[in-house]
Amino acid sequence: MSKLKVSIVGGSGYTGGEVLRLLLFHPNVELGQVTSERFAGKSVFKIHPNLRKITSLKFSLLAELGASDVIFLCLPHGKSMAAMPEMMQKAGKIIDLSGDFRLNSLAEYERWYGRPHTLPDRLADFVYGIPELHRAQMRSAKYVSSAGCNATATILGLYPFFKNRLVDLHKTVVEVKGGSSEGGNSPSDASHHPERSDTVRSYKPTRHRHVAEVIQELSFGQPAQIHFSATALGIVRGALATCHLFLNESLEEKDIWKLLRAEYGAEPFIRIVKEKTGVYRYPEPKILSGTNYCDIGFEKDPESDRLVVISAIDNLMKGAAGQAVQAFNIMNGFEETTALQFPGLHPV
Amino acid sequence: MSKLKVSIVGGSGYTGGEVLRLLLFHPNVELGQVTSERFAGKSVFKIHPNLRKITSLKFSLLAELGASDVIFLCLPHGKSMAAMPEMMQKAGKIIDLSGDFRLNSLAEYERWYGRPHTLPDRLADFVYGIPELHRAQMRSAKYVSSAGCNATATILGLYPFFKNRLVDLHKTVVEVKGGSSEGGNSPSDASHHPERSDTVRSYKPTRHRHVAEVIQELSFGQPAQIHFSATALGIVRGALATCHLFLNESLEEKDIWKLLRAEYGAEPFIRIVKEKTGVYRYPEPKILSGTNYCDIGFEKDPESDRLVVISAIDNLMKGAAGQAVQAFNIMNGFEETTALQFPGLHPV
Amino acid sequence: MSKLKVSIVGGSGYTGGEVLRLLLFHPNVELGQVTSERFAGKSVFKIHPNLRKITSLKFSLLAELGASDVIFLCLPHGKSMAAMPEMMQKAGKIIDLSGDFRLNSLAEYERWYGRPHTLPDRLADFVYGIPELHRAQMRSAKYVSSAGCNATATILGLYPFFKNRLVDLHKTVVEVKGGSSEGGNSPSDASHHPERSDTVRSYKPTRHRHVAEVIQELSFGQPAQIHFSATALGIVRGALATCHLFLNESLEEKDIWKLLRAEYGAEPFIRIVKEKTGVYRYPEPKILSGTNYCDIGFEKDPESDRLVVISAIDNLMKGAAGQAVQAFNIMNGFEETTALQFPGLHPV
Amino acid sequence: MSKLKVSIVGGSGYTGGEVLRLLLFHPNVELGQVTSERFAGKSVFKIHPNLRKITSLKFSLLAELGASDVIFLCLPHGKSMAAMPEMMQKAGKIIDLSGDFRLNSLAEYERWYGRPHTLPDRLADFVYGIPELHRAQMRSAKYVSSAGCNATATILGLYPFFKNRLVDLHKTVVEVKGGSSEGGNSPSDASHHPERSDTVRSYKPTRHRHVAEVIQELSFGQPAQIHFSATALGIVRGALATCHLFLNESLEEKDIWKLLRAEYGAEPFIRIVKEKTGVYRYPEPKILSGTNYCDIGFEKDPESDRLVVISAIDNLMKGAAGQAVQAFNIMNGFEETTALQFPGLHPV
Repeated sequence: MSKLKVSIVGGSGYTGGEVLRLLLFHPNVELGQVTSERFAGKSVFKIHPNLRKITSLKFSLLAELGASDVIFLCLPHGKSMAAMPEMMQKAGKIIDLSGDFRLNSLAEYERWYGRPHTLPDRLADFVYGIPELHRAQMRSAKYVSSAGCNATATILGLYPFFKNRLVDLHKTVVEVKGGSSEGGNSPSDASHHPERSDTVRSYKPTRHRHVAEVIQELSFGQPAQIHFSATALGIVRGALATCHLFLNESLEEKDIWKLLRAEYGAEPFIRIVKEKTGVYRYPEPKILSGTNYCDIGFEKDPESDRLVVISAIDNLMKGAAGQAVQAFNIMNGFEETTALQFPGLHPV
Repeated sequence: MSKLKVSIVGGSGYTGGEVLRLLLFHPNVELGQVTSERFAGKSVFKIHPNLRKITSLKFSLLAELGASDVIFLCLPHGKSMAAMPEMMQKAGKIIDLSGDFRLNSLAEYERWYGRPHTLPDRLADFVYGIPELHRAQMRSAKYVSSAGCNATATILGLYPFFKNRLVDLHKTVVEVKGGSSEGGNSPSDASHHPERSDTVRSYKPTRHRHVAEVIQELSFGQPAQIHFSATALGIVRGALATCHLFLNESLEEKDIWKLLRAEYGAEPFIRIVKEKTGVYRYPEPKILSGTNYCDIGFEKDPESDRLVVISAIDNLMKGAAGQAVQAFNIMNGFEETTALQFPGLHPV
Repeated sequence: MSKLKVSIVGGSGYTGGEVLRLLLFHPNVELGQVTSERFAGKSVFKIHPNLRKITSLKFSLLAELGASDVIFLCLPHGKSMAAMPEMMQKAGKIIDLSGDFRLNSLAEYERWYGRPHTLPDRLADFVYGIPELHRAQMRSAKYVSSAGCNATATILGLYPFFKNRLVDLHKTVVEVKGGSSEGGNSPSDASHHPERSDTVRSYKPTRHRHVAEVIQELSFGQPAQIHFSATALGIVRGALATCHLFLNESLEEKDIWKLLRAEYGAEPFIRIVKEKTGVYRYPEPKILSGTNYCDIGFEKDPESDRLVVISAIDNLMKGAAGQAVQAFNIMNGFEETTALQFPGLHPV
Repeated sequence: MSKLKVSIVGGSGYTGGEVLRLLLFHPNVELGQVTSERFAGKSVFKIHPNLRKITSLKFSLLAELGASDVIFLCLPHGKSMAAMPEMMQKAGKIIDLSGDFRLNSLAEYERWYGRPHTLPDRLADFVYGIPELHRAQMRSAKYVSSAGCNATATILGLYPFFKNRLVDLHKTVVEVKGGSSEGGNSPSDASHHPERSDTVRSYKPTRHRHVAEVIQELSFGQPAQIHFSATALGIVRGALATCHLFLNESLEEKDIWKLLRAEYGAEPFIRIVKEKTGVYRYPEPKILSGTNYCDIGFEKDPESDRLVVISAIDNLMKGAAGQAVQAFNIMNGFEETTALQFPGLHPV
């Protein structure tokens, strides 16, 4: 079996650790280096304790990085664009998991991120990393920019309705509720367990950066407006987007079923969840931990033109590392579900 | 000090237990009976283990109920109206914690609860139990119907804006996130710990019954439309309402501050929470456990006419038993904060 | 690749669901039937929501069960021995996950389970299902009785020390702390989320049934005494055994390392965890969710002859379904780690 | 009513915050200053968000501290003894919540804390702060050293049995399971929510410092040996000590009841918890959050001489601030339960 040499830059964080976990079981991958400036020389399992006895790999310095076929770039926002020119020398294909190359528009980048972009000419070279929307481009892409976690849940929930121009473009309200792993692995007063535990904390009532991606992907000719808030919960993994759409034509639930099946029926990682009985009637992130699924459900308000679309992911998987590996599979002609078949646990 | 004789009917549930806990420390209350058909004869602390060594009271049968000055009626929805005629014989004042007497309109009751009302003539006799809206009527009220937990959080967050006609009446979207104690003390597949733990579960994406109360209280002449969803979390106590309002006139954050202070500045149980730094910048239910506060915060979207109002309560306190005792204090001329001064814990 | 036909009897519980999840990804398994009297005719994913889109299998009635090469018997304690004679007709090999055939001694069974055994002649036919102790017998076994979850964690922690006669046989104290999935999927007052959440609840301070298995496996000629308590926590998966052994000869930590490496160094599912720095210095169940590992660590008290051995598992995996599949692999000559390679998540 | 002027030194931590919360509702206390070097000048509610609208007090610098009747000293271990000489100038009575003055013996202090004591002459001046053991001395004490949280739970559980010489002095094993607030309010990798959540983490398998206090208090003439381990859980508040004692004479459960009633029957903050039915059959910390109770239960192993004693507290209350206020009440002749009457919540 042909193998590609793959390296991970910025491998000590939560996203880098997840990419590493997935690649260790990928039959077409020969792992090159995993870099970490802070932990260079240490075994990766000291930082990612789930990998004990799985690999004897050690972190290396970025300065020691050799050539690879593919690099997963897992650096923090801002540092990714600084490293990008060198990375483009080191590997033919790059999947960037930061926010630096998600927006096509320099103006939008500067508006939402509040700083200049150091590599604006390259923005157009990156395919936005949601395979369900951009699979065709990914097949021949050299560079993919993996989508934000909250953006992924939101876009996948809203996409069929916006693409088909079924909703009022100015009234959509989205609330994403997410776990503490969204904040990365650096401790802070807010992430201190006694403070974060069992919390229901307004994180970004307005102006969340992921809104920029959502608008970019959902504006089909006409700019969409997304009223977005994020609430931080006391769970570790998972994000649930509750999306309130206002339909501009009358649709019954069976029409919506049909629409979702038409759009997503063949998608390996999207499941439509809508049950009349049982405990799990709507999508729920807890049973998605470790999986690459995006579960989508909905309910039409019988009293108004509101449609509630509910979309659940594991923020570190479909919202980051899993989706990045899915893109990697597509870019390199591998079976799309390779290394992504873990079905999740129940109960959990 | 003058004391009233007070009984609790339906005292084995979570709401009844909280009322009992509060009344045991109320200086103006002489506890009469606490009824429970299922546990009659047993010490109350066997069911409410926090009351061990606090009281030697035992549950009695409803059939044994004597006369009281005041009854807190903590029966399930539907059973309350069945018992009400007899209760009205047993006590001069009644605070009902079920949903049976919250709606003034029989038509609305039947529409939202899906069954006939057995005591429709009495609907008009009950004051809706949010003191911040109906304190004056409560002072002379014989009957108060305590408000729903999610409704309380929502109404208190929205009230100043609807009352002052500042919002588009058709676009408000509210998402309430609540804990497992909202479902009462009967175990079910959905409340089984392995299934409920760490969940983010769409509970009522549309058609939540509390919407009826919210609309009733917020329609000042013109019917308000509230697009409401509820999500169940893996916490035990607490509810957070995230409310998306669309302003029909331009307001800056300082105007909103002023409005909230004017409305709630003198309220003993409402706090405006909006900090620029620190961990607790917005209202958070976790620090409200056991308290009667409703914390309210907000953020104006600088990019649109959206105002996000955030409102947090303990669903069993300000959302049920605490607010009922607050009403009791007002109805009987006691200091409004009596027995409700617990400030909550941090950390927790 | 050769495939065996495998059926699961009692497939709607947590243990049956885990066996099913594992077998669906086992390359040598052709799934026969999965029975459930309560849910016969329903898709398995309605009960095990993680299996949606993974399988279209439906539950069948036990009465419809055909012949299989192997049966995983996941019935409750007591029901397993009742069904066993018929199961032995239906399949050549059986792995029983109940407690009915764990004890070799009828007297011990009746003493600890407090009821007669209906199939005492068959007790001797079952190999006790911990591969690290009984791999050789398993290779030719027809019948394996999977070990109890708390017993597995305890036995694997204590085994090297008892086998090598290094401990006082009468002083060992073991405390196992476990999650709510240990109690199965039937809701009760004690498993109701508001009651079970965040609990630290003494479950069996004395007389836990698993003690019988532990004594059976650790008595090398001389009866061992195990002072055992179990505490129930508010987690869902996982068990940690903290074992206090009193050494009868002076051992330093490096001797203990050597002993554990000698015993377990070649074991695919045992890891020795003892770090001087970092967060995960000792075994921790949370990073084992979904894995078949038993992580073992230790600390010698420098002030006394006490050795603390710490052993962590996922109770539904190494403590039930995973270990059963491990036994299945051994019994049938498959690679022992087949279908058990999931490394666990971090963070989680 | 006579009021004492009371100051809190080191008021920004969790323990200081709890002392402050309790004193704000103490009828005999006039709050002087609350110091914090880091937050001087800020409102206390910015750090203790539960105190918003309860007090307008601000933190002051230690250098600004004036004279008080009583000081609660809530500085970290080591800093307390450094500040003590000055504190003794500022107030006639001091309650120290650090570990600096808990041990009477300088040698033991240096052995367990691994550093010299800077004020050894003062060790004998401090009464060890568990009222149930030292109430008489406290009545006339100027200085009290509040007991460690895990030590408090352990000592109160073991005391009646050691005092009455009923146990083998060398075999006692104690395992304390505690929440994340035990570690204070400084964030670290280990306290980062994704790492600490749902954990069952061996914290100190051997050599926990609190053992020194336990031995000191339980050695009646003869040195007791306590084999102690601590395990950190993913809860915030609460500690449960599971104590395995080996009786040196035959006692039945009714004898143990009698013994505990004789010792603790008149104690306002100790409850004996042992039920045959219901959910809360043994002590459980979750229902003690915010209370000053120590709940004690037990079970005698019918198969051996082992007695399991189970002891639960809120580590920040009976394990720190609550017990300190209880001592304060005793030292100053106030009703012992003043400001400590909160009964705890259920459910929670």
